[in-house]
Amino acid sequence: MTRVLYDLCGLDEALRFSPYCWRVRYALAHKGLDVETRPWRFTEKQALAFANHDKVPVLVDGETVVPESYEILRYLDRTYPEAPLLGDGVADARGRFFAHYAERSLAPAMLRIIIMDLLSAIHPDDRAYFRESREKRFGRSLEEFHSPVRGLSQLDTALEPLRGRLAEAPYLDGEAPGGADYIVFGNFMWARCVSSADLVSNADPVYAWLERMLDLYDGLGRQATRITDIEGAYR
Amino acid sequence: MTRVLYDLCGLDEALRFSPYCWRVRYALAHKGLDVETRPWRFTEKQALAFANHDKVPVLVDGETVVPESYEILRYLDRTYPEAPLLGDGVADARGRFFAHYAERSLAPAMLRIIIMDLLSAIHPDDRAYFRESREKRFGRSLEEFHSPVRGLSQLDTALEPLRGRLAEAPYLDGEAPGGADYIVFGNFMWARCVSSADLVSNADPVYAWLERMLDLYDGLGRQATRITDIEGAYR
Repeated sequence: MTRVLYDLCGLDEALRFSPYCWRVRYALAHKGLDVETRPWRFTEKQALAFANHDKVPVLVDGETVVPESYEILRYLDRTYPEAPLLGDGVADARGRFFAHYAERSLAPAMLRIIIMDLLSAIHPDDRAYFRESREKRFGRSLEEFHSPVRGLSQLDTALEPLRGRLAEAPYLDGEAPGGADYIVFGNFMWARCVSSADLVSNADPVYAWLERMLDLYDGLGRQATRITDIEGAYR
Repeated sequence: MTRVLYDLCGLDEALRFSPYCWRVRYALAHKGLDVETRPWRFTEKQALAFANHDKVPVLVDGETVVPESYEILRYLDRTYPEAPLLGDGVADARGRFFAHYAERSLAPAMLRIIIMDLLSAIHPDDRAYFRESREKRFGRSLEEFHSPVRGLSQLDTALEPLRGRLAEAPYLDGEAPGGADYIVFGNFMWARCVSSADLVSNADPVYAWLERMLDLYDGLGRQATRITDIEGAYR
């Protein structure tokens, strides 16, 4: 049985930067499950028609097709119950909050910092789509939205609960990493792969956690291709 | 057996506004446990010497003395295992994040809005202590720290993950309220008791949740004395 993950790629097929796909990459590694990742670009909607979906991640596990990162984590827990990612009941309910925290607190702050790097990291064929869809969402041009100083200040505020938690435990989920860690860490992989911006100072408890997360699963995150690894791509 | 909670009071003994004490009031109600609350003021450190602690809440349950709100919730789960508040393992680990979110994201934003109301709500004997300790913490005078417009904007940003979660479920803990709800809601009780400021618009998913929380346990929160109920106290 082949397990396939449709995974967003950028101007190079090796550049994989979707925060949602990174959640799933870590979740699969957590379960000890192999996966073949298949590079996909924003405008290749047709390639996902089989899943009745137009975004990645999409996981194909034998006969089963599962879109959306949180749903994939739930699917993995149901199908491979060893080493739960989200858990049941209240654990799962609380797990959802981390997804909203990542998407609504961290991502908007990071985006103000990395948006122009992100544009450069995307495949040239995808840039018009990306610009148009994001400018519509932000209600202004990417250049106007881009505001690293404001983004860093917003991120500094948004990181406060993460700092508090990581000052008392090595991982969000306690002594060992779990679903909450992978959900939040996905955003940091996103920024790391497309940008060389320093988001967190090395005196921050979040920094030490990022280092631990990068090391997990034989350096899964640390070995990921970054824009700075691609010759000629980084100005 | 008498169960006693030392509970912060303001210029009137009926005015109870500590966010940490409200967590515990709701947690006890959740477990169906009676409690006698004992009014306590900031400067009455001596009255808590028996607990080796200098802040409320302190719960005295028969022979057992437990300070600190999160520890009290854990104690209640251990001692009265029916209807868990925090749960075990990953559920508990994730529960901690809500405490940091409440204390580090919500509280600083709310404080900029309500700080002068809070000062007025405190017993006159406590005001010098309160001013001195807070001005030291903020590094500026209360009047300089007070900035309702900035606070409301900061709160609007901080509420984003809460909005996302409450748009998909009636409570943070899912279909029924739990420890995460009480921890976060404590901050809203704090603001509600000392101030008439509107923190959340009635179109916000957070608003509907606040209304549900106020109604729980025979209107425990809704019936709480507010500064506006105290004759002559509210200018």
